[in-house]
Amino acid sequence: MERSAEVIVVGAGMAGLKAARELTDLGCEVIVLEADDRVGGRTKRAEVAGAVADVGGQWVGARHEVLLAEAGRLGIATYAQYDEGKVMLELTGKLVRSRSDVPSMPPLALLELARLQKLWNRDMATVPAEAPWTAPKAAQWDAMTLETWIVANLRTASARAFARLVSSGAWAVEAREVSYLWFLDALRGNGGLEHFMGVKGGMLDAKFVGGMQQIAQRLAAELGERVVLSTPVRRIIQGDDGVVVHTDQGEFTARFAIVAVPPGPAQRIQFEPHLPGARDGLHQRMPMGAVIKAAVVYARPFWREAGLSGQAATVGEQLGIVMDDVREDGAAMLLAFAEGEHAREMSLLGKEARRSRIIEALVRYFGPEAGEPLGYEDNDWTIEPWTHGYVGVMGPSVMTRFGHALREPCGRIHWASTETSTEWAGCIEGALRSGIRAAHEVSRRRNS
Amino acid sequence: MERSAEVIVVGAGMAGLKAARELTDLGCEVIVLEADDRVGGRTKRAEVAGAVADVGGQWVGARHEVLLAEAGRLGIATYAQYDEGKVMLELTGKLVRSRSDVPSMPPLALLELARLQKLWNRDMATVPAEAPWTAPKAAQWDAMTLETWIVANLRTASARAFARLVSSGAWAVEAREVSYLWFLDALRGNGGLEHFMGVKGGMLDAKFVGGMQQIAQRLAAELGERVVLSTPVRRIIQGDDGVVVHTDQGEFTARFAIVAVPPGPAQRIQFEPHLPGARDGLHQRMPMGAVIKAAVVYARPFWREAGLSGQAATVGEQLGIVMDDVREDGAAMLLAFAEGEHAREMSLLGKEARRSRIIEALVRYFGPEAGEPLGYEDNDWTIEPWTHGYVGVMGPSVMTRFGHALREPCGRIHWASTETSTEWAGCIEGALRSGIRAAHEVSRRRNS
Repeated sequence: MERSAEVIVVGAGMAGLKAARELTDLGCEVIVLEADDRVGGRTKRAEVAGAVADVGGQWVGARHEVLLAEAGRLGIATYAQYDEGKVMLELTGKLVRSRSDVPSMPPLALLELARLQKLWNRDMATVPAEAPWTAPKAAQWDAMTLETWIVANLRTASARAFARLVSSGAWAVEAREVSYLWFLDALRGNGGLEHFMGVKGGMLDAKFVGGMQQIAQRLAAELGERVVLSTPVRRIIQGDDGVVVHTDQGEFTARFAIVAVPPGPAQRIQFEPHLPGARDGLHQRMPMGAVIKAAVVYARPFWREAGLSGQAATVGEQLGIVMDDVREDGAAMLLAFAEGEHAREMSLLGKEARRSRIIEALVRYFGPEAGEPLGYEDNDWTIEPWTHGYVGVMGPSVMTRFGHALREPCGRIHWASTETSTEWAGCIEGALRSGIRAAHEVSRRRNS
Repeated sequence: MERSAEVIVVGAGMAGLKAARELTDLGCEVIVLEADDRVGGRTKRAEVAGAVADVGGQWVGARHEVLLAEAGRLGIATYAQYDEGKVMLELTGKLVRSRSDVPSMPPLALLELARLQKLWNRDMATVPAEAPWTAPKAAQWDAMTLETWIVANLRTASARAFARLVSSGAWAVEAREVSYLWFLDALRGNGGLEHFMGVKGGMLDAKFVGGMQQIAQRLAAELGERVVLSTPVRRIIQGDDGVVVHTDQGEFTARFAIVAVPPGPAQRIQFEPHLPGARDGLHQRMPMGAVIKAAVVYARPFWREAGLSGQAATVGEQLGIVMDDVREDGAAMLLAFAEGEHAREMSLLGKEARRSRIIEALVRYFGPEAGEPLGYEDNDWTIEPWTHGYVGVMGPSVMTRFGHALREPCGRIHWASTETSTEWAGCIEGALRSGIRAAHEVSRRRNS
């Protein structure tokens, strides 16, 4: 095993693998150290009743150019997200069948929804991608939660519930936890509300035949022995000439390191000398959203036959979001997400009781046939080792006080992970872009 | 070296040492594993121009019964905090000499200050010590920042600035970062605003001759070889019969573990099996306040001669809080605190430039004589290894969603640290109490 390289990449998720591949293309020798016994980070493949399921990151947006190009290069095909029929919607206690383009709401609430979108678009447009903390109203917006904004700006229960659902459905955290400035920046970086919630042409446009984790596996295969699994990094010591990386499998050395793990989990690494207060403070202040994703396979897509899209979006229910995932090979699957507090509750239940709870909810949403699955599998990301959740988010005052540290190298250490991307943060696309950016940062220093 | 005991305590700060001492009193064998090469955690002694200085936790409140009893038992004497003369106050840009009991403010602002205290006392009284998340208005108060509350409830610039100063001065974080519910609970647990800001009979009543860290050193001396320094804990694996603790110096085993480090830094330990989502989520969501504490020694207490208390409280200045600390042996010392954003800025300066900046501020506050110190020393807690800051705080939505996990044991792991204390959280008193609680929790299980 090589113990020395020009660059050590910590983490074999999408960001780390892409950084490493980019560096090898630039003629630079790398070693990728992964704590887990698998690659892929927040993407994960499972098998359910013989079908391939994605129990981690899955969707590829229509504008996810880097991811689409990578998949194209690797010969991985996409299939479209189904988006016909009615959606099951519960915003204020009652589950209703709703059109997906015009939600079932009182007229006043619909008006507010249109206003909400206008306000968010207006505010979002003032947030600069490279430095959201310099937005003209950054100080004010970062001093309040999204929930504070919602209560101050929306009057109808339905519109408020919808706004909260955007936060919980998309980032697996509650509106009461995140900063309004961070939220605006997250919306901005993901194409705005319409694109963000959109299926055809939007963020939920398509998925990969064979699953998302393949991308990581193929990148890792290209890197070959450069990827070292089951090697948790415990300490990174910087000196004048390079870095020494202490792992459970001994020491590795390099000129530079790219830490390609989310800011929160990066806190688990001991840095010597100590990181600057702003970077260390950022690590302390980007908790991961909580999510459990379940894949349930049925004999046939009965919901489609009943004129339903297989989509559900709920606020009060324990199962917040459901999506159709009839796979390219015909396996009739529903994907179900428990988020935030609901994820933590379901986590405590254990898998068997959780399975019952989730199937029960699917029966409420789609009728009795949902009670007879051929198979069930889930992944509890709240207790996933080395990841500890979904995507790192920011509460109030973090963006304005610590945001500048997101991409700032600390000596010989550079930072990747979807959270550090100015575009598509939270998506695989953001992870890949962050890897490319970090690789080029290091490459420039290496040649200078 | 013993490798096995009934209980392993992780962390030789005040909480861990007290837990260990309590357990030995209960007839239980313990090992204390400390990552650093010293004991005391957030207490630290320095020498400045031949004088003893406390560059960490220092004050003992009049109602800190456990700490006073411990110091009494160990034969450590107290000396009173000086509190005569005028205070230098800057709330809205202008530095003024002010009476300490009635701050120099416009009459309207003074009225608001009285109202502020009434409102906080009223709200605080509804927050139950054992379960702040069950306060009648918990949901509402935990969905907003303290800053949101300030802007909604106070109109004068002076009263707003004063309210912000309570947060930054007392917890080294800004009002824009913390939850209003958490803030109320923190006030409640520290005797309310009046007590909290109070010198004689209040939280700042007295200090220890020879410094606070002595308490830790004496407790450690009593524990003898049971305290193992320079032994960072990396993993704790729980089994049916006990715990295996992996450190840089090999493995230790015990029936139970008490993790006596703050929730944030506790995240650095890998737990197997994975902690429940709520506990892990709490670790991700209790960032440490940022503080640099400086001790400056002069030939004589010239400020006292000028009718000044040596106290300063400022909002706009880089140096937020200054206190007199003429030691029992006559050494004329001023203590200066940079907090929050100011601490992170001063951290980047490095010690020499920081010294100049701090002395300059002291000259602005107390006149030219402040420019001629005999000695200067400081401790930058933002880069203190193993601590990473001041006290763990909670942003919005953390108390209601994760607060219940603060003291809940996770299998064979029990939790201590001042943050977990229902009373005097943030103080040494809270740390000691948390250690006693955790020790008795374990002792009860051990005998059952």
